[in-house]
Amino acid sequence: MSYELRKYKELDFNDDLFKNAQNAKYELVEKDRVAPDNYHAMSIYPEYFKIDGKWILAEESRMDCVPVLREDNSIDIVEFRRLKTGDKVIVGRTEDASEGIYVHFECFEDNNPCTNDAFCFRAGRSRETSYTKDYEELYELLKYEKENGYIVWVLGPAAVFSKGAREAMASLIDNGYANVLIGGNAIATHDLEGSLFQTALGQHIYTQESVKDGHYNHLDVLNKASRAGSIEELIKQENITEGIIYSCVKNNVPLVLGGSIRDDGPLPIVIADVYKFQDEMRKHVNKATTVICLATQLHTIAIGNMTPSYRVEKDKIRPVNFYTIDISEFAVNKLKDRGSLEVVTMVTNVQDFLEKLNTNLTK
Amino acid sequence: MSYELRKYKELDFNDDLFKNAQNAKYELVEKDRVAPDNYHAMSIYPEYFKIDGKWILAEESRMDCVPVLREDNSIDIVEFRRLKTGDKVIVGRTEDASEGIYVHFECFEDNNPCTNDAFCFRAGRSRETSYTKDYEELYELLKYEKENGYIVWVLGPAAVFSKGAREAMASLIDNGYANVLIGGNAIATHDLEGSLFQTALGQHIYTQESVKDGHYNHLDVLNKASRAGSIEELIKQENITEGIIYSCVKNNVPLVLGGSIRDDGPLPIVIADVYKFQDEMRKHVNKATTVICLATQLHTIAIGNMTPSYRVEKDKIRPVNFYTIDISEFAVNKLKDRGSLEVVTMVTNVQDFLEKLNTNLTK
Amino acid sequence: MSYELRKYKELDFNDDLFKNAQNAKYELVEKDRVAPDNYHAMSIYPEYFKIDGKWILAEESRMDCVPVLREDNSIDIVEFRRLKTGDKVIVGRTEDASEGIYVHFECFEDNNPCTNDAFCFRAGRSRETSYTKDYEELYELLKYEKENGYIVWVLGPAAVFSKGAREAMASLIDNGYANVLIGGNAIATHDLEGSLFQTALGQHIYTQESVKDGHYNHLDVLNKASRAGSIEELIKQENITEGIIYSCVKNNVPLVLGGSIRDDGPLPIVIADVYKFQDEMRKHVNKATTVICLATQLHTIAIGNMTPSYRVEKDKIRPVNFYTIDISEFAVNKLKDRGSLEVVTMVTNVQDFLEKLNTNLTK
Amino acid sequence: MSYELRKYKELDFNDDLFKNAQNAKYELVEKDRVAPDNYHAMSIYPEYFKIDGKWILAEESRMDCVPVLREDNSIDIVEFRRLKTGDKVIVGRTEDASEGIYVHFECFEDNNPCTNDAFCFRAGRSRETSYTKDYEELYELLKYEKENGYIVWVLGPAAVFSKGAREAMASLIDNGYANVLIGGNAIATHDLEGSLFQTALGQHIYTQESVKDGHYNHLDVLNKASRAGSIEELIKQENITEGIIYSCVKNNVPLVLGGSIRDDGPLPIVIADVYKFQDEMRKHVNKATTVICLATQLHTIAIGNMTPSYRVEKDKIRPVNFYTIDISEFAVNKLKDRGSLEVVTMVTNVQDFLEKLNTNLTK
Repeated sequence: MSYELRKYKELDFNDDLFKNAQNAKYELVEKDRVAPDNYHAMSIYPEYFKIDGKWILAEESRMDCVPVLREDNSIDIVEFRRLKTGDKVIVGRTEDASEGIYVHFECFEDNNPCTNDAFCFRAGRSRETSYTKDYEELYELLKYEKENGYIVWVLGPAAVFSKGAREAMASLIDNGYANVLIGGNAIATHDLEGSLFQTALGQHIYTQESVKDGHYNHLDVLNKASRAGSIEELIKQENITEGIIYSCVKNNVPLVLGGSIRDDGPLPIVIADVYKFQDEMRKHVNKATTVICLATQLHTIAIGNMTPSYRVEKDKIRPVNFYTIDISEFAVNKLKDRGSLEVVTMVTNVQDFLEKLNTNLTK
Repeated sequence: MSYELRKYKELDFNDDLFKNAQNAKYELVEKDRVAPDNYHAMSIYPEYFKIDGKWILAEESRMDCVPVLREDNSIDIVEFRRLKTGDKVIVGRTEDASEGIYVHFECFEDNNPCTNDAFCFRAGRSRETSYTKDYEELYELLKYEKENGYIVWVLGPAAVFSKGAREAMASLIDNGYANVLIGGNAIATHDLEGSLFQTALGQHIYTQESVKDGHYNHLDVLNKASRAGSIEELIKQENITEGIIYSCVKNNVPLVLGGSIRDDGPLPIVIADVYKFQDEMRKHVNKATTVICLATQLHTIAIGNMTPSYRVEKDKIRPVNFYTIDISEFAVNKLKDRGSLEVVTMVTNVQDFLEKLNTNLTK
Repeated sequence: MSYELRKYKELDFNDDLFKNAQNAKYELVEKDRVAPDNYHAMSIYPEYFKIDGKWILAEESRMDCVPVLREDNSIDIVEFRRLKTGDKVIVGRTEDASEGIYVHFECFEDNNPCTNDAFCFRAGRSRETSYTKDYEELYELLKYEKENGYIVWVLGPAAVFSKGAREAMASLIDNGYANVLIGGNAIATHDLEGSLFQTALGQHIYTQESVKDGHYNHLDVLNKASRAGSIEELIKQENITEGIIYSCVKNNVPLVLGGSIRDDGPLPIVIADVYKFQDEMRKHVNKATTVICLATQLHTIAIGNMTPSYRVEKDKIRPVNFYTIDISEFAVNKLKDRGSLEVVTMVTNVQDFLEKLNTNLTK
Repeated sequence: MSYELRKYKELDFNDDLFKNAQNAKYELVEKDRVAPDNYHAMSIYPEYFKIDGKWILAEESRMDCVPVLREDNSIDIVEFRRLKTGDKVIVGRTEDASEGIYVHFECFEDNNPCTNDAFCFRAGRSRETSYTKDYEELYELLKYEKENGYIVWVLGPAAVFSKGAREAMASLIDNGYANVLIGGNAIATHDLEGSLFQTALGQHIYTQESVKDGHYNHLDVLNKASRAGSIEELIKQENITEGIIYSCVKNNVPLVLGGSIRDDGPLPIVIADVYKFQDEMRKHVNKATTVICLATQLHTIAIGNMTPSYRVEKDKIRPVNFYTIDISEFAVNKLKDRGSLEVVTMVTNVQDFLEKLNTNLTK
């Protein structure tokens, strides 16, 4: 079975709805970081703006950011904190074309009576939901994306705390199923702790034993990394030959690691400024076609908030597939409460999730 | 790798501790169901009672029940509700041999620095625990038990709500990995609903679609079963050819189903009286060598409370392995709060658990 | 502020929809416990059946049970297991009047833009929902019900495990805010354990200390109760003067206790047969105007399944208010997944819930 | 009842254990941010170092940081990232005095048989634990701390999402029960959203209604704040007269807000660099005598990791009381898994927690 993307429903701009609509209005930014009062804010859906009689799509969108009209009549989606005096911010809080702003909610054709019905998804995604089909679709999707897409992985610590999960994730990377890895200082530190000491937070990742002085292990990793100056150099100096981080480095999969207020260390690569880290994540989100978030509420919501439901490619507009896997219903549902409706959630332990993926994709 | 049971540490009854101890005392039951005030209550560990100078093991124990001395000097462990006037109940609340009662807490040798240290297990069994080794040990254990033991499965509804989990569990039964299936009316009803309608509670077990009038499906199953008069007859009349219940019937794996205060129906086989159901469960627990409980807090605690940590076989005393798998830390820990300390808990979605077991044991 | 019930929207049976409809059809039961194939099953909403040209309301409904036409043209709602050969079961799976069956979904006027919008309720009842108004409305409701209604309490063990919660619940009973108490063997046993030993499961209900031999305490309670022969006699013999059970007995609030497959004991009053217990619960549900379920998933779903959304009183039809309070989103949402949509759920620790109620209602 | 602090157990340094011990050794830092290999890392307990024959206490400790010997023979506890070339880092991974390092684990006398027994606390802090006594002790503690201590509040969003919780927290601040408020951009933004629009994330904080265009509300707050330039100026310009943030500003309670990778905005006051934010938090932790963390896993662990179990005051050493309240057992237990053992955890909804505190302290 070959995977088929859902088709984009092109709009007919000759329709009266669009032809009779006003041009979108804009107002100028008068102070850096401050939008005009009636600014329009973006959703996760494709949004078109009527500029000089022509409907222009915002190509790289981000929820809760504002559309800025550029000199070439393109629409740039800008975080408030990056607004500059003089920027032309589009104003208006409608979405029905009348004011020159149109949000294309149901934008993809449905091969699946359930897939793009928000309520359908909302109903009862819990430990009792059947995930058989979700898994099967995900296997096919990832085989497709390996050749055609850009797969973003967002990991929480639970993905690196067990031998089985580490090996499965590393194997997925080695087999081409990851284009970038995003996370915090902790996942890289504890994965490297696994490589160096076979522990995570001092507990053996296979035998579960708490080793003597084990609470020093992650500190030793961080200290050795500071001395080495980079993760690459650490891997060389310590002869590290396995692990998730090792696989990323070996396969040139970029690591994007953000600092956290509870970090020790951090590792040299970690970005301390949370807004710079947002910018760094967004560079990858702007290429993403599938995003898979495992067991990290904070990073999942951060990525979820900046990922639009669509991607503009050379010849087409395609959906962005967003998965979040966590053991807590609250965690997976929170993303939807925060506005990211188009997401497939699965409630399970990510160790089992990763091993199933690896078994079905690489064996 | 062949599986090795942990060895029982035989006691030396020539030791002064035992030789100098008094005989155990008993008092007579004066009213049905009522124990003498100072009755002894059992734990999950092997307990020996000194009777006429000889230390006798209670062979089929049950926590929170009382030891009754029989005419042949054997020790019967009896639920309070089954006490009869004239029964000789052993009295005394010590466990150090002094009063003729000895509880053998650390009774099995340890191939595993961690396995029989209660605190070791207690510490941090959560979604973040590494389960790699637990899975590997369980695979080996089940291969051993298939030939040598008696495997009790206790299922909650989540095990029958997805196509993948149903197929995996049925395959495990077909391949000899189940000796009895224990559960409530719901799991049998919804598994049969899957066989007849491909739904569970009206939702398709593969596509997740809510089918029209789907809430009638489980009622129709129950009504058809009442008409058929038995599950076997229902399977025949409706040409059922797959599912967990079907596999049990085909393979002569006994079904022990207890009624619940929230049942519709129930199915003809269901036991309405909860204490009769306890008695029926205990018949199987008295043979059990491994117990696996999935996603059912109520049945898990019920079985957990009646399962001792050891089994007396012809030539040896061996451990009883008790597993409980649930997606909620609270659920798996609750069993330990209720006194069942010797249990391996795993925090995950049982759908994935079952599929991993099946992949590793039958493929 | 005096509490106002939402008003029932009376139907106009002179409307063509009703006048042109057929009479409802029925078929005869041919075997005890078995309905005719096309039986109609009830919802939680008021349902009308056209009998001899007249629309008759089922006055005491129960979800997933069947309507039986009696000689006097009244409609009795009967559990499948109580069907008798010859009963006239109404058939048809429509609800739009056409076949003589009409389900009155939006039957109450709304003083609250949100109250009867199912989606409104469904959206985000979680730990992050604001419960301020729910509490305030509940205080007013309970003051009204104390004079005019029938308040059913359904308790799980967490309600009796702390000194504060026990005192609050007892005070609510003493002050007239409870008409019946429903639960399992455990809540009565552990409340009485609190009265006799100041422990619950051996842990002190105030200091949290685990007392020596504390695991004997609940067994001693059960044993003493068996000797006494009744809870009333136990209270007398042991000079019990406080606690939830004590307050029930003192105030003639009926105790309806169902057996569970994990019970020790049980107490003399406990009903062992789960379907007899259903019948006993339904006697009270048939009078209920407000139901409050605390920290017990099993009993909550059992009661939820049998509680209709309306109550027929002498002069009016009024809503039944159903509250479920639990610390787990999954637990409170499960009720809705099982079909009971009209429920107010609150996510918190029931200890705090009970103390807030008591502070605001009795002090 | 007046509150009594647990007394510090002074050590007798004339004891042979201490007199015969070696002096602590140190090694020099050779590269900024890098400790010598055998560095000692701190715990949450008081630690003494033998310097020139004299035992010196580290007065302001922080777990997982290193002790640096200063010119005046004082011991500074330094984060790895702040180590400078030439710093004298004490080395050795023992804690029994032998190498001149002594960790004083059981350092406070116990008025409470349970309070300083780690296992006692660890056992079963769950939704079923009795919290009656914890509440009563907390009321007395806070009355004491209001006069004598420094109370640090750490808030997650759930504390500002309901009318009741906001009013309770504001009242506690107004009545002198808070010395500093720590949190993220979200809690301040949504509290101010409550002040300006009576919503949180677009949902009314009392009626629960989702208001039209409500998702713009928090963006409008952030935009207005950027225009105003400061929270103080925003309050003035928008005539804000109630709320948690308002109460902080009115009562000169410092606000310490850290940025998060999922922020919109942020507010002008927010610290973007997570390590600068750690430094800012630590300034307050170094004065803290009681810390109360509500419904925020990330901030709780961050603060928990940097809070020692003791505080050196002019005339005495006293305990630091650390409370964490969350609705999830996993969240409250995680802190202990991360090494912060001396913490009182309560499992409930923080709305109810705050209202109970306010009712008992200010009314």
